[in-house]
Amino acid sequence: MNIISFPDRIEWPALLARPVQSTQQIEAAVAPILSQVRTGGDAALIELAQKFDKVDLSTSGLEVPATEIEAAESQLSDALKAAIRQAYQNIRLFHERQKQPIEKVETMPGVVCWRRSVGIEKVGLYIPGGTAPLFSTVLMLGIPAQLAGCREVVLCTPSNHPAIYFAAKLVGVTKVFRIGGAQAIAAMAYGTESVPQVYKIFGPGNQYVTAAKMLVAKEGVAIDMPAGPSEVAVYADDSAVPAFVAADLLSQAEHGSDSQVLLVSTSKRLVELVNLALPTQLGKLPRQELAAKSLENSKTILVETQQEAIDLLNAYAAEHLILSVENAEAVAERITNAGSIFLGNYTPESAGDYASGTNHTLPTNGFARAYSGVSLDSFVKKITVQHISPEGLQKLGPVVEAMAEAESLDAHKRAVSLRLASLLEEKMT
Amino acid sequence: MNIISFPDRIEWPALLARPVQSTQQIEAAVAPILSQVRTGGDAALIELAQKFDKVDLSTSGLEVPATEIEAAESQLSDALKAAIRQAYQNIRLFHERQKQPIEKVETMPGVVCWRRSVGIEKVGLYIPGGTAPLFSTVLMLGIPAQLAGCREVVLCTPSNHPAIYFAAKLVGVTKVFRIGGAQAIAAMAYGTESVPQVYKIFGPGNQYVTAAKMLVAKEGVAIDMPAGPSEVAVYADDSAVPAFVAADLLSQAEHGSDSQVLLVSTSKRLVELVNLALPTQLGKLPRQELAAKSLENSKTILVETQQEAIDLLNAYAAEHLILSVENAEAVAERITNAGSIFLGNYTPESAGDYASGTNHTLPTNGFARAYSGVSLDSFVKKITVQHISPEGLQKLGPVVEAMAEAESLDAHKRAVSLRLASLLEEKMT
Repeated sequence: MNIISFPDRIEWPALLARPVQSTQQIEAAVAPILSQVRTGGDAALIELAQKFDKVDLSTSGLEVPATEIEAAESQLSDALKAAIRQAYQNIRLFHERQKQPIEKVETMPGVVCWRRSVGIEKVGLYIPGGTAPLFSTVLMLGIPAQLAGCREVVLCTPSNHPAIYFAAKLVGVTKVFRIGGAQAIAAMAYGTESVPQVYKIFGPGNQYVTAAKMLVAKEGVAIDMPAGPSEVAVYADDSAVPAFVAADLLSQAEHGSDSQVLLVSTSKRLVELVNLALPTQLGKLPRQELAAKSLENSKTILVETQQEAIDLLNAYAAEHLILSVENAEAVAERITNAGSIFLGNYTPESAGDYASGTNHTLPTNGFARAYSGVSLDSFVKKITVQHISPEGLQKLGPVVEAMAEAESLDAHKRAVSLRLASLLEEKMT
Repeated sequence: MNIISFPDRIEWPALLARPVQSTQQIEAAVAPILSQVRTGGDAALIELAQKFDKVDLSTSGLEVPATEIEAAESQLSDALKAAIRQAYQNIRLFHERQKQPIEKVETMPGVVCWRRSVGIEKVGLYIPGGTAPLFSTVLMLGIPAQLAGCREVVLCTPSNHPAIYFAAKLVGVTKVFRIGGAQAIAAMAYGTESVPQVYKIFGPGNQYVTAAKMLVAKEGVAIDMPAGPSEVAVYADDSAVPAFVAADLLSQAEHGSDSQVLLVSTSKRLVELVNLALPTQLGKLPRQELAAKSLENSKTILVETQQEAIDLLNAYAAEHLILSVENAEAVAERITNAGSIFLGNYTPESAGDYASGTNHTLPTNGFARAYSGVSLDSFVKKITVQHISPEGLQKLGPVVEAMAEAESLDAHKRAVSLRLASLLEEKMT
């Protein structure tokens, strides 16, 4: 890893900048796919699968039949099923506690306001294909959807891995489709003869999928968040175990050559030990080429003080932030920008990636400055409700009248004045 | 108003469809403005203000000086200031109760996960100019920003109305700029010499402002929500006061000729009485031309049953929904799609628009199917944090190992295995 020692603050923005991805070309390729699906429906989906994936969906059908999903369970080892069930339980427990009870607030006597959380009726989940079957993401998206009470949960995936089907069944996905790529996003955004139109789309994917999500978002279909390559920042001091730090950096690096890995430390010794451990551990990985390439683009930054480290981490706004430092919890309280934080030597990122309970769909690319990771909130809308009694309106009404008049919205004022006049009349008769 | 009696469900989508707005032309006009500000900074802002608004910002300066904001207070009547202060108090009270305490969840023994809410460091608010000075929107956006603890709250507005400055001071806006239109959105999204770059942008605006927000959102700057013309749906039965219903419809209609107004009822009598009241009330409005035009596009739909009314309202997903029916609170519990709900005869929409406590920045255009209105949540990020003890990892680790292996992510597995091996070694020595 490239070591940068004690950079000046003025150099930080350049050091911490993510590679800029030009999206224009990809969008230009994706836009016609979206409109083809919008107008062509199922037939377009079949044509595009043939064209891009050399898959004949006209024979297999677009939807995965329930029998095939049922059958998946028998194809998995008991150990894996037990692990998935334990992860399900932990994730469910953590997300369940995010439910908010209705609380009525009387802002003035007779003026009562509250919020009701209602599950988004129809949501769509996308799970990419490829070598790694991301059944963990099915749990991370499906469990909060289930807890929110979403009535229709559509899953599109080009993978037919039994663990994905097994997880889909656990979380109560209502329909699974064998559709991949930008066309899957289009199918869920616009609906086709087979695929229900959904109101919000979640899930990872390649640049085409990401571009499709951003394009449909601009048309008003909600999405989980903008996406970029996965990333980890590790802040370690002499209390950190160098081998653990190296393992955490590598577990991020194996995601792909565009993965972002950042090590921040006040300890030269720790940095040297981590860099010693890296090649040995790297040599043992089946995906070592990917990881090695990603490490080439990665950086170790030595800083003078803990305050500087914290400032730098807040400026970077990492998706995952591992704090392998002595006073980790106190440091975490001073972190203002991060997706998810992991404390101490025995909390590897992979725990949160799979099974500790937190969600692994997190803001990358510095989006943690404004975005949260996926949670139960992502699957509900909060509807405000209010009731004002005649007495309440007598108190609140004049406030509304004065403000509406000052904003020159006369009909807004009159909607109150008319009621106040009627109450006065009632009183007088 | 156009009365449609007992339409078939198959006709609903066409009846409830919002006018489609072609955004392509507007986006094409806005994109060069964005890039001009991005590269030209303050100088571009001055040039664009000259070009579009015939305003010379080089003399007045881009930023409104503190003295000018201070001076605003003396230009307002005591009655208006008292009303604004009362609204401030109610809105603050309602939003304050949306704070979520940190709750640590032990998902397995030794595995502890929680969420921390952190205010978005820098946010931008946009308040349009025009005849109506929307100081109420300054409260609606500024109060949750203040409660969230956003460090920098930038306000861009072409209006110099003292009520806007007064409200800005109340909510603790840190900087006010005399910038309007798409260029204001660009200034806050990219930053200029004078205007700080922000991470999330809020606020209403014309089609150019809206298009600018959607374009910067696609680049990763967060925005409150997609926007469309304001709308109200009123569901009224014979318990409703026809004059009140008419006044509520008109208070929506006066927003502009593109405002959407919908009346749903099971009572032919009520519908007739409302339509009798409308022309008389309309005649008294200063903005009657606007309102009359908006009413022309509005619809009254007569339905057979309450169930049908509820289904229709859920299909429409109104920004504002007034339930002037006997069992209003029970009906509200069956509403799944709406921005904000107003119950009974004495809860006009304008109460929520100004002062009852709920937020008036709400999802229009059917976006209530997936989006919530602005709340304290809109100004914070929730960072997940976790700590796993050595004992916790001994329990959770094997679950992570099994799942990582099945996803072919070997380094993810090894980050756990290495730690488990080290714990085992410790035990044995």
